[in-house]
Amino acid sequence: MKNKTSTSDLTLSNNERLYFESPSIFKPKKFSNINPKGLKIYTFQSGFKKSNEDLLVIIFDKLINNSCVYSQTSTPSAPILWDKKNNKGKTKALIVNAGNANAHTGNKGIQIIDNYTKYLSKKLNCNKNEILVSSTGVIGEIFKPSIINNQLDKIFVKKTSKLLDAAKTIMTTDTFPKISILKFKLNGKTYDIFGIAKGSGMIQPNMGTMLVYIFIEPQISRIHLKKLIKNNLEETFNSISVDSDTSTSDTLALFSLGTSNINLNSDKNFNIVNRAVRQIMMDLALKVVKDGEGLSKLLKINVTNAKNKIQAKNIGFSVANSPLVKTAIAGEDANWGRVIMAIGKTKEKIIQNKIKINFGKNIVCEKGAVSKKINNNKLNNYMKSKTIIININLGLGKHSSTVYGNDLTKKYVEINGEYRS
Amino acid sequence: MKNKTSTSDLTLSNNERLYFESPSIFKPKKFSNINPKGLKIYTFQSGFKKSNEDLLVIIFDKLINNSCVYSQTSTPSAPILWDKKNNKGKTKALIVNAGNANAHTGNKGIQIIDNYTKYLSKKLNCNKNEILVSSTGVIGEIFKPSIINNQLDKIFVKKTSKLLDAAKTIMTTDTFPKISILKFKLNGKTYDIFGIAKGSGMIQPNMGTMLVYIFIEPQISRIHLKKLIKNNLEETFNSISVDSDTSTSDTLALFSLGTSNINLNSDKNFNIVNRAVRQIMMDLALKVVKDGEGLSKLLKINVTNAKNKIQAKNIGFSVANSPLVKTAIAGEDANWGRVIMAIGKTKEKIIQNKIKINFGKNIVCEKGAVSKKINNNKLNNYMKSKTIIININLGLGKHSSTVYGNDLTKKYVEINGEYRS
Repeated sequence: MKNKTSTSDLTLSNNERLYFESPSIFKPKKFSNINPKGLKIYTFQSGFKKSNEDLLVIIFDKLINNSCVYSQTSTPSAPILWDKKNNKGKTKALIVNAGNANAHTGNKGIQIIDNYTKYLSKKLNCNKNEILVSSTGVIGEIFKPSIINNQLDKIFVKKTSKLLDAAKTIMTTDTFPKISILKFKLNGKTYDIFGIAKGSGMIQPNMGTMLVYIFIEPQISRIHLKKLIKNNLEETFNSISVDSDTSTSDTLALFSLGTSNINLNSDKNFNIVNRAVRQIMMDLALKVVKDGEGLSKLLKINVTNAKNKIQAKNIGFSVANSPLVKTAIAGEDANWGRVIMAIGKTKEKIIQNKIKINFGKNIVCEKGAVSKKINNNKLNNYMKSKTIIININLGLGKHSSTVYGNDLTKKYVEINGEYRS
Repeated sequence: MKNKTSTSDLTLSNNERLYFESPSIFKPKKFSNINPKGLKIYTFQSGFKKSNEDLLVIIFDKLINNSCVYSQTSTPSAPILWDKKNNKGKTKALIVNAGNANAHTGNKGIQIIDNYTKYLSKKLNCNKNEILVSSTGVIGEIFKPSIINNQLDKIFVKKTSKLLDAAKTIMTTDTFPKISILKFKLNGKTYDIFGIAKGSGMIQPNMGTMLVYIFIEPQISRIHLKKLIKNNLEETFNSISVDSDTSTSDTLALFSLGTSNINLNSDKNFNIVNRAVRQIMMDLALKVVKDGEGLSKLLKINVTNAKNKIQAKNIGFSVANSPLVKTAIAGEDANWGRVIMAIGKTKEKIIQNKIKINFGKNIVCEKGAVSKKINNNKLNNYMKSKTIIININLGLGKHSSTVYGNDLTKKYVEINGEYRS
């Protein structure tokens, strides 16, 4: 189980069982893969998970630029504390382990990271703070850095892995690996951008999310990398929620591999790169929400004609996170009354009799009251869809926001309520 | 189902089935009852529910003082809009129907209330605005006022009911009636205070709650009634949450029956009455949360040593409402990492390494990290209790707050996800 608190041995988490048991209905039929240039991927089975690979080490060919955003939680995990303190946006290597989150481990958790980053930095002849680290899995459990160091010894000897292996290695309760590969053209030349993510529960990101690593081929300054994240975060990873819970480990990192050069001071060029970054971020964000724990339906909430963007988003999240809306969707019930309830419980000032609600193209509510045009047959049929779109027109202004979520099923309760044994 | 949106006939809600099927494990073994003085209780089976009584009419012997608080939702039901506009704190009668919430029914909903309040006011020879109304049940469905008026014709002819009948009549998905009866002594004389409530899901009140009616024997001014509610609301009904969803119909009314006199300008006297009101409010609030939909455990979150009361309460609610905490409790898993996660996701400024967490008397976390003193046997045994107390010491200041909630089970998903049929 993801972020399962443990107090005894390392093998409590049963990620593997969950992984193989019941893949999300949105699991892609096939996965793209790539053997990327500019970096070397190593994946190891170190023992954090009962079986499967659980340690990802990426060594960049040179010292490259990166920019990160992290969970805004006030109880961050050790890797977030460590990265924020140490990493200055120049990175030679990335170490990610899955199966132990190194969260709420106090000073010991920091010392563990100090230990294995020093160990790798000596091998790479780089500075400790040129390494970026992440951890995901069991919370509150100290582990021995030797678990990681023993594997680091095999680097340069071991065969390198492909990007899909990297995506698999960082999974916990995910039922499928999240990978996204894209090419974009700029002034006649083609560039690569690709990324991986993990996340399935404890998901309502708040500036940064889960674990997400995106790599972009051309040389880009840290200022531009930061801007590329900022431009696109709100409408991608900060617009999804599986269960309204914010992880203590959320991290998004954008790396510039620097294997080619582009001029991003030109607005036209920047916009092209910006679009590519947004596409990758949106694709990975949607893959996370499509792998929401126990989901049976994807939920897309469009809030339109709001007074401002924040209002639209707050209302979107209130609807996407309402247990009563989520259970109704799981029950294929077009329960628009619960949608109005979820609009009403926010502190946003709205005018009830201006609200219009459609489920897909099916109108259910006009002027805040039941619509006379409801076609129950069509509506009930629509509710059987795998993706349910709820369109909420507030009739107040010109701003809009789209939020993605999923339904709440008995399976979610099962996955997260099972007693560790 | 509570607040089930419906678009066709009146008999869709299957409250009755749910009611009889599986009572809460906290259902009292026996119920007190009373045939109160100063008011006449009439209960009717009018057809809002498939079976059982569903219409409560209380006629006060005289025009009495009352004070109300309502849901702070921006999408209130018609009865809340109507009461706020009409009732000025002087009441001759109360009409409550269960099975149709008269919510999101637009102007028609208001006209329905105008119709049946006028009908009763003629019979009682009082003003329409001396009647207080509430409705709970199906959302978005217009009903004919004659459903109520036909029953009102029987008033004065029909035998009166007792208080427990009133509590039963207003139930929807409640699995037991909520009644509280108390006596308090003042200057050697004994006075009655008693109340009823309904509520089981869509519960995180926000100034007022569900439907709650409390009656106090002595004559009390409206100013004092208001003060008595204000003094006690935050720590009773505004400290509970079943599912973080705020109903569009929440109403709490405190009535002074005026059958005897007391002097509340004396601080000593006021404090005695205040304590009695608090006791009734706390008892009814706890009964609501103990009947939370599908619950298997009651959750009590004590947040202590906070910087201020608001911080303590925000953190308490964040923990009580976290799906990951709630499912862990259902699974009897002392998952304190999820508690830290839920503390961290609020916007409250805390210091992670000052956090101390106990489950009951069992320490799990000290200085924000796993405690070395964890006794897993005792802890696992404790998690089997029906009531789980989570003590969170923030180590920041002197303020505290207690919040009540419950766990999240498959049954909650079942109750709220069943397709209406």
